[in-house]
Amino acid sequence: MATLGLVEYADASPEVRAVYDDIMTTRQTDWINNFWKALAHDPATLRRTWQSVKEIMAPGVLDALTKEMIYLAVSATNQCAYCIASHTAGARKAGMTDRMLAELMAVVGMANETNRLASGYQVEIDERFVHSGSRR
Amino acid sequence: MATLGLVEYADASPEVRAVYDDIMTTRQTDWINNFWKALAHDPATLRRTWQSVKEIMAPGVLDALTKEMIYLAVSATNQCAYCIASHTAGARKAGMTDRMLAELMAVVGMANETNRLASGYQVEIDERFVHSGSRR
Amino acid sequence: MATLGLVEYADASPEVRAVYDDIMTTRQTDWINNFWKALAHDPATLRRTWQSVKEIMAPGVLDALTKEMIYLAVSATNQCAYCIASHTAGARKAGMTDRMLAELMAVVGMANETNRLASGYQVEIDERFVHSGSRR
Amino acid sequence: MATLGLVEYADASPEVRAVYDDIMTTRQTDWINNFWKALAHDPATLRRTWQSVKEIMAPGVLDALTKEMIYLAVSATNQCAYCIASHTAGARKAGMTDRMLAELMAVVGMANETNRLASGYQVEIDERFVHSGSRR
Amino acid sequence: MATLGLVEYADASPEVRAVYDDIMTTRQTDWINNFWKALAHDPATLRRTWQSVKEIMAPGVLDALTKEMIYLAVSATNQCAYCIASHTAGARKAGMTDRMLAELMAVVGMANETNRLASGYQVEIDERFVHSGSRR
Amino acid sequence: MATLGLVEYADASPEVRAVYDDIMTTRQTDWINNFWKALAHDPATLRRTWQSVKEIMAPGVLDALTKEMIYLAVSATNQCAYCIASHTAGARKAGMTDRMLAELMAVVGMANETNRLASGYQVEIDERFVHSGSRR
Repeated sequence: MATLGLVEYADASPEVRAVYDDIMTTRQTDWINNFWKALAHDPATLRRTWQSVKEIMAPGVLDALTKEMIYLAVSATNQCAYCIASHTAGARKAGMTDRMLAELMAVVGMANETNRLASGYQVEIDERFVHSGSRR
Repeated sequence: MATLGLVEYADASPEVRAVYDDIMTTRQTDWINNFWKALAHDPATLRRTWQSVKEIMAPGVLDALTKEMIYLAVSATNQCAYCIASHTAGARKAGMTDRMLAELMAVVGMANETNRLASGYQVEIDERFVHSGSRR
Repeated sequence: MATLGLVEYADASPEVRAVYDDIMTTRQTDWINNFWKALAHDPATLRRTWQSVKEIMAPGVLDALTKEMIYLAVSATNQCAYCIASHTAGARKAGMTDRMLAELMAVVGMANETNRLASGYQVEIDERFVHSGSRR
Repeated sequence: MATLGLVEYADASPEVRAVYDDIMTTRQTDWINNFWKALAHDPATLRRTWQSVKEIMAPGVLDALTKEMIYLAVSATNQCAYCIASHTAGARKAGMTDRMLAELMAVVGMANETNRLASGYQVEIDERFVHSGSRR
Repeated sequence: MATLGLVEYADASPEVRAVYDDIMTTRQTDWINNFWKALAHDPATLRRTWQSVKEIMAPGVLDALTKEMIYLAVSATNQCAYCIASHTAGARKAGMTDRMLAELMAVVGMANETNRLASGYQVEIDERFVHSGSRR
Repeated sequence: MATLGLVEYADASPEVRAVYDDIMTTRQTDWINNFWKALAHDPATLRRTWQSVKEIMAPGVLDALTKEMIYLAVSATNQCAYCIASHTAGARKAGMTDRMLAELMAVVGMANETNRLASGYQVEIDERFVHSGSRR
């Protein structure tokens, strides 16, 4: 059970309901997952977090699926069980197939391996990487 | 300086040179970055790591750019300085623009924030996430 | 179940009982939580860990509540489920209200986000931060 | 050097300058640290991040110093060099003395140790911790 | 339940069965643990991961028990529940006693503590550590 | 530079000198590395940390070299630059050869990879791992 319990829609204040409504409208769904119901004990954090997620996860130069897969990659790296479960569902809804999940996990695993090899061997950053210019 | 120093091409054994040659051919470049030169002290790990990276990072159902961005997302989450520098360069070479980098980092930052909120509030995984089927 | 099982008071050696007694006296409680019962298979680590915790968590220039909240902030960052549960209880016992928990989590989440933005963008440490003197 | 370079005030767009001005006013200082100058390449993230930091770090039921110390505790746990440097400076400005820093670090170190002991020994969460009620 | 379910031997393709057979032969056991059954949805990753694990975990200049304990040390540091459980079992099979487990965990806990103290205090690397030569 | 500067032997209090002397005697060396000189601003933490390290790292059922390699494995996983540098030196002094370092890093890298695969695929712990008994 979440630390402070979950705030159901029926028990929510108008301020919280407004966020819940926006989540359901934006995501075209009729339910709210536990994460938001737990945050609802702190309406300011609920509102701010949802606004940030909504703004960041909206399609931009990266599409929604790519963003969901990046979110999942971070969650798997941090080994956050809740986040892996919710963003696996989110990525699937955005179009991730089993095959894409498999390739994603292969990259995540490999990156975590080479991150430690690079640090463990105390490898210095190559001059070329320091001075690589940006691309617009 | 890397723990065991760097193995330059001129000083490398035939086994190591074969990997260096394959890296340069695969990446269509004429140089080897420090990570591989550090691993070269252990030819078995050099060969195995390169084979895995080559296989995993080849375009599949996910394209090369998406894979590089996922790699960078993991490296930023782990805060591995070498890996962030090398995979920022790698992602750019694969086509990442400044704007894509910015959206990528925004997602990475947000995911790291909500990972801790989900864990910190001890949020239980929703039933729907447990039973979400796969998509082929 | 803990790897080596839990050592209950009735089954504990005099050495372990002495630590259990000190824990209950110091914390003004009549029970021992599982963490200590698991460590009790290794009396030296039990004793050393308890002595360190007791010494570190005693009020100093930081009060007990602040220390418990810092402990919880670390546990949430590491996403250690046991530690989040036990130190949420500990912080509450020391006086943390729901509102304080919410502000704590907001800071923890934000810090985890900006940590990755700072590393991901490869931001160099400002000269002023390097040379900032100490304050006594 | 930050990945995309640093945006100095003189070169900043009006949108970015407005954030810089608010940072300097809020913090009662006349300079902007590199973190914000790096984010400025992505004005939306700059604005959103600053708004969140400003809102979260304002004194509430937790005072500014406690919040800065929690921020530093997270940064030390994640071992983010930039963040440790900047938030050590920030905490000092808010009143952290050398002695407070020492107690803070002792708690952070201890928490990181016991987090691994709890997980490594696979300790189950005590019933009492699961059902501990909230405190208002 | 694993994201993509578990592939049992009876339902496995010849390619997956070949890996399962090699796992059972190499480990002198008659069963396959869930990790491999989950990876089996992606036969390429199953094969590559098993080949790497088999090659890396084979006795070399480090014996099998030492390697298993290092694997467990990493898993406890990352707080990966599955990995802690499976590698505790693996290390025991290789000869780890309760006493060895206790010493291992004590080192893991201590290292996690001092890692944060070193980073948190922003300690610079000693000249002697930078220039320490290798030992053959 | 360390946050609070480094306390040299000549400037140290008798309490700090006693710890420095014990470090040099125990390690059979004539110098003190920066980590301890940074902690010396907080004599209680210096003493407690050194006593714990001394007790934990002394040969037991695990020899000194194995313990140093486990320490290095944790430090590489956490990517703590100072700790990697100092414990690479420490492990070498205890007898680690280049070949042993290479095998150690290969295990550390692999464990970090499979940790994420296990968590990312949401693999459930096998019944057999839950009920595996201890070995004395």
